[in-house]
Amino acid sequence: MSLDAVTIADSRSKGDVGPLVRLAKADMAAVDALIIERMQSQVPVIPLLAEHLVSAGGKRLRPLLAVAAARASGATDEIAGSRKLAAAVEFIHTATLLHDDVVDGSNLRRGKTAAHLIWGAPSSVLVGDFLFARAFELMVETNNMRALGILARASSIISEGEVLQLTRAHDLNLDQETYLRIISAKTAELFAAAAEAGAVGAGADEKSIQALRAYGLNLGLAFQLADDALDYGGSSEVLGKNAGDDFGEGKVTLPLLLAAARTRGREDAFWDRTINKGQRSDGDFRRARELVVGSGAVGVTLDTAHQYAEAAKAALKVLPAGDWRRALEQLADFAVSRAA
Amino acid sequence: MSLDAVTIADSRSKGDVGPLVRLAKADMAAVDALIIERMQSQVPVIPLLAEHLVSAGGKRLRPLLAVAAARASGATDEIAGSRKLAAAVEFIHTATLLHDDVVDGSNLRRGKTAAHLIWGAPSSVLVGDFLFARAFELMVETNNMRALGILARASSIISEGEVLQLTRAHDLNLDQETYLRIISAKTAELFAAAAEAGAVGAGADEKSIQALRAYGLNLGLAFQLADDALDYGGSSEVLGKNAGDDFGEGKVTLPLLLAAARTRGREDAFWDRTINKGQRSDGDFRRARELVVGSGAVGVTLDTAHQYAEAAKAALKVLPAGDWRRALEQLADFAVSRAA
Repeated sequence: MSLDAVTIADSRSKGDVGPLVRLAKADMAAVDALIIERMQSQVPVIPLLAEHLVSAGGKRLRPLLAVAAARASGATDEIAGSRKLAAAVEFIHTATLLHDDVVDGSNLRRGKTAAHLIWGAPSSVLVGDFLFARAFELMVETNNMRALGILARASSIISEGEVLQLTRAHDLNLDQETYLRIISAKTAELFAAAAEAGAVGAGADEKSIQALRAYGLNLGLAFQLADDALDYGGSSEVLGKNAGDDFGEGKVTLPLLLAAARTRGREDAFWDRTINKGQRSDGDFRRARELVVGSGAVGVTLDTAHQYAEAAKAALKVLPAGDWRRALEQLADFAVSRAA
Repeated sequence: MSLDAVTIADSRSKGDVGPLVRLAKADMAAVDALIIERMQSQVPVIPLLAEHLVSAGGKRLRPLLAVAAARASGATDEIAGSRKLAAAVEFIHTATLLHDDVVDGSNLRRGKTAAHLIWGAPSSVLVGDFLFARAFELMVETNNMRALGILARASSIISEGEVLQLTRAHDLNLDQETYLRIISAKTAELFAAAAEAGAVGAGADEKSIQALRAYGLNLGLAFQLADDALDYGGSSEVLGKNAGDDFGEGKVTLPLLLAAARTRGREDAFWDRTINKGQRSDGDFRRARELVVGSGAVGVTLDTAHQYAEAAKAALKVLPAGDWRRALEQLADFAVSRAA
């Protein structure tokens, strides 16, 4: 971990996902039950493959956001609609993970062997399609067309972001604006849509819906940027994946872009070989890490992440004060404090 | 072409897709415009890749079915909803084609080089996802939750069928019932859902909706079985793909299953090598074709296809007599007469 990052993180709130997880315990138990129930199929490989990912856990952040949005905007009764939307959000997310891992040729997901390495890429593609379709079946059951529209639109934005990333993945000339557009689309949009749809599903007022969407979008950006920074500065324990994965795939992220810009003239040959040409060998990640951390790129990325986390918290101000709002604020701090 | 097949086809109505295409000209022009409009994206490779498939044409049978169902059940005014559902159906179909070609490693689609060979499998997967999401965005615009439910359910059934086919693709012990289950799910369900949703979108009465769904399902089965037969007996001109493609992929279809059963004891080694073991070389397709045609398997498959075409026509009897109903009847005959 860079000294920069530690200093930055230490000067700010540590954050915690625990309070939100505890508050949402009953809702999330219901969501988990729905997820298990609706990924079943008479075709045996489908639940097997889906369960491989689902049981690996992950933080279920996106469905958590959906139910938290319903609660934070004032819902106190049953929120059957928002729970179904939350399960649908997790299905959409799982579908994109399955397809991403095929697209990127990733070996590891949530600490387990990627599904396509066990069941093959074709099964991963098709089971992803199945989960995506099931997500829409769940949404139809809520009979909430507005929520459906939010998640349908998010789904097309996500795939646009993925394609954009794919076509620009190894392009060191990527500008920061395009990079932010990519992570807005491929990551932050589903956070935003989850929060927005969760609130809509619980009949929240318009002001709260917009606030929760803004919260989700900024939270998503904060999470992704912190993740990008961790890939050059974190331990695999914190990451749930190995540090160096992005570099190993030659993936252009903000820390890399900043480092390449800041070492221009001195290190062009190194970046050109490892990223543009994709010729990486042992020891290259160590050097890349030194350059990324040493040039202050990790620090700047974390700074940017903190700004988004602050924007996320600020968006919550219109919501009723209380446990839920406070827990969402702590989640925003948590998104960026993992880096410390 | 086998003598069997020619004899069977000649003894029945030739059928024609022309009358339906002419009747639906204005509706389909509007659907085509929608398709072009909604596959646009600011990410350049998306419309490029999508257009590669869409401009290759194909018969647009599924959207045609959706608008025809609206008309045949009595709609005379504007059918904006059904047109949007028709475009959505074509997007779902195009998405499954893109994913199928990746899954099967196919080289050719609609007479053109398969998209994944030009833009790569990752782009094909992701653009498929984009089109699928866009389909749901279009459906949301119709504000018709029932139609949405029909197409969401169809989408999950299709992917279940694809996975089932994938896991049983090279299994000569597949029973006919499972085979029919596979083609019902992967092909006929979208025909059924297209017709059903098209009718629902135009506010048709329940009796007509059910009749059109039954028509679509039987039509889809007839088409798929005729296609399976053509793969062993047709010319590439009629097929729009090369005869022998199924065999070339070691794909188990009804003609193959029947032929293997009918030549049991004599040709087990041949089928075991070419299908179970997947060891195929030049000349094997010629021999397979002789065995499939010679054993009467093509004839039986076409017979079965004809039975479904008759069932499709019979389902239409509850609809108002007229040009549209007649044109749908001719389409059912066309589905199976291509084989002649």
